Amino acid sequence: MSIRDVVIIGAGFGGLSAAKELAGAPVNVTLVDQQNHHLFQPLLYQVATAALTPAEIAVPIRSVLRRQRNARVLMDRVIDVDADAATVVTESGRTLPFDALVIATGARHSYFGKDDWATHAPGLKTLNDALGLREKILMAFEQAEMVVENDPEAARRFQTFVVVGAGPTGVELAGAIAELSQSVMRDFRHIDGANNRIILLEGGPRVLPSFAEDLSLRAMHDLKALGVEVRTETMVTDIAAGHVTTNQGDIPTETVIWAAGVQASPAGAWLGLANGRSGHVEVDETLRPKGFDNIYVIGDTARHEADGGALPGIAPVAKQMGQYVGRRLSKLASGKEPPSGFRYLDAGSLATIGRNRAVADIFGLKVKGFAGWLLWGAAHVYFLIGFKNRLFVMLHWLWLYLTWQRGVRLIMHHEPATDSEKS
Amino acid sequence: MSIRDVVIIGAGFGGLSAAKELAGAPVNVTLVDQQNHHLFQPLLYQVATAALTPAEIAVPIRSVLRRQRNARVLMDRVIDVDADAATVVTESGRTLPFDALVIATGARHSYFGKDDWATHAPGLKTLNDALGLREKILMAFEQAEMVVENDPEAARRFQTFVVVGAGPTGVELAGAIAELSQSVMRDFRHIDGANNRIILLEGGPRVLPSFAEDLSLRAMHDLKALGVEVRTETMVTDIAAGHVTTNQGDIPTETVIWAAGVQASPAGAWLGLANGRSGHVEVDETLRPKGFDNIYVIGDTARHEADGGALPGIAPVAKQMGQYVGRRLSKLASGKEPPSGFRYLDAGSLATIGRNRAVADIFGLKVKGFAGWLLWGAAHVYFLIGFKNRLFVMLHWLWLYLTWQRGVRLIMHHEPATDSEKS
Repeated sequence: MSIRDVVIIGAGFGGLSAAKELAGAPVNVTLVDQQNHHLFQPLLYQVATAALTPAEIAVPIRSVLRRQRNARVLMDRVIDVDADAATVVTESGRTLPFDALVIATGARHSYFGKDDWATHAPGLKTLNDALGLREKILMAFEQAEMVVENDPEAARRFQTFVVVGAGPTGVELAGAIAELSQSVMRDFRHIDGANNRIILLEGGPRVLPSFAEDLSLRAMHDLKALGVEVRTETMVTDIAAGHVTTNQGDIPTETVIWAAGVQASPAGAWLGLANGRSGHVEVDETLRPKGFDNIYVIGDTARHEADGGALPGIAPVAKQMGQYVGRRLSKLASGKEPPSGFRYLDAGSLATIGRNRAVADIFGLKVKGFAGWLLWGAAHVYFLIGFKNRLFVMLHWLWLYLTWQRGVRLIMHHEPATDSEKS
Repeated sequence: MSIRDVVIIGAGFGGLSAAKELAGAPVNVTLVDQQNHHLFQPLLYQVATAALTPAEIAVPIRSVLRRQRNARVLMDRVIDVDADAATVVTESGRTLPFDALVIATGARHSYFGKDDWATHAPGLKTLNDALGLREKILMAFEQAEMVVENDPEAARRFQTFVVVGAGPTGVELAGAIAELSQSVMRDFRHIDGANNRIILLEGGPRVLPSFAEDLSLRAMHDLKALGVEVRTETMVTDIAAGHVTTNQGDIPTETVIWAAGVQASPAGAWLGLANGRSGHVEVDETLRPKGFDNIYVIGDTARHEADGGALPGIAPVAKQMGQYVGRRLSKLASGKEPPSGFRYLDAGSLATIGRNRAVADIFGLKVKGFAGWLLWGAAHVYFLIGFKNRLFVMLHWLWLYLTWQRGVRLIMHHEPATDSEKS
């Protein structure tokens, strides 16, 4: 069977790299995404904490593929895949035939079956999540300021921020909220900065469990230096309006952020594959699920065992998987020998904890403190797509570094009342 | 009566200048606004057309007044003014006593009694309006691309943009949409740029009616050069889904933008003043409505006759009124002679029509074309509040100018489906 039509679902790190890798191949690429933009998710927490603007970490998918004449972009939502007929069905009623399909639909939050927690403890996956969270955090200070005179207890609740989960996202978010809360405090006249509490909850024994132990310790130390209370071995048992309940006691708070668990997108269901609680699709070393000849599943949606463990759901894994599938399909389409099985090249891990502090493990070299922080910044700017985004993010960071001013403190969802309410 | 507590409602150009003018005065200033940010409205259309980001034209009110120790900021909504008791009542239940009150609550859209048009023809007053409009315009191209093969008529409707009203906002918006539509066209594979139509409707005989006639003619010429169809003497008689009806015929379109009329905020009702259709509060040369000794009404909410005509509802008028009232209250609070009546210093008018083109009338000097455009840019950057905003807007404009790339093409309100919809 020759490969001519390649359909890719999802324009995250996986899908976009697959599409770009196919640039020179004799195929027609159709990249389908619900959004019009590719999002640089590793910096999403900086949008949520008013450091960067949405436009600095997102780029229109159409712009990225402008010059790639064999690729077209569809802004549409896939509702089903018919593996037998080899077609993809979209919400707008399109049927897209494919010779090869790449599923790169990512992951979403998982509340371990407690879906009602979602209302009180939003997670961070999309730009709207980030803007909603930014608003929630900024409004908490406004509300504390408003109630502090009459109800100091309520003000304390508004000044308490709980982050659930101490993986890279949770750690970076807790650090950034700590810095944001210090920086905004200059602008308030009534509330007391000493009442700001940022609490990071982790079920396991240490933060950054996927990092080497000494880096975890350093991260814990850096978080504490920033004023973050780190509570390990702490399991959340309930989340409701005004408080979080844990096995170590109750925390009164108005702001809880979920960074604890993700679940693969429900792509497995399209393929009729029974997928476990995490929803991942098991793939072999060619990144295909068993029994499918022309369907690839990559990135956070896939589960691929390598060297005894499953690869983590992080950007570099998704990107390398996308490149591998792109290269493979390119070879197959040209009638050449496909590459051997996928091998993940682990360049290491990075996490930043506020200004001047980060922990990094790059090709086995451990870097901490200021050097780690510079490395973290350089790596993130390097991997940002689009020259303008790189330039503006660098300038913006320089600005933040020099002035300590978080300029993106906009509360926008909180709109003025409509006229009927007004009068 | 001595003046100690000054309450200012609204942190637009008028309210914020009044607050800043009071910096050295022996008073307590309370600035109340529903939003947490001051918005540079003259550039709002650039957010709506994906040229600038929200953070570039907005600044947190608290930051602006950080160093002014006699001022505090309340993020709250005023629901009533009790002139006899000299108090302001807010939504959160506060009662703010005042010795002097400044009402600077601005204006909103007016559909001349046809409020149902609002659904189909949104206007442009807040950041959310701008983001909603940006999404609507960008989605129109996406939808045109999606339907063009099966329904070319519908695609044409999506590629038609109608702006109602050819004042400065309407003219600048029409020019910006024309440029945006040229620039995005490179990224689409199916729709034809020749089908893009930008139509500017004006009831009067010429665009920019408040400008000198030769500048109007030049603006009309510049708009046509950009591909905008200008239709003067054209009255809108109906707006509904899929079309606009005018006295000159029907226009099939999916995107209508309202730039035709504004109405003062309903502050007049708080004072028990009968206000006309436009809702303005008539003020004397001290900017007080008749019969009120300690209440000032400024900016778009006020109507002040000067040199035979009412002052227009534009930023410089609001700003100068705010400065006047601030100066006046400062003198009164110090027991000094207040300044004589308010005099508006008209520096002129400016409007830009796409890159390299603008018309300006500065202190009687008429400037057109490239020189006018540079002047327009310099004036807007100069009046932007906050050094960072100035720097980033300049860099962003330079970027746009050199690359023709509109980078802020994010569709964010259009979120991925929730999980229950997905599966």
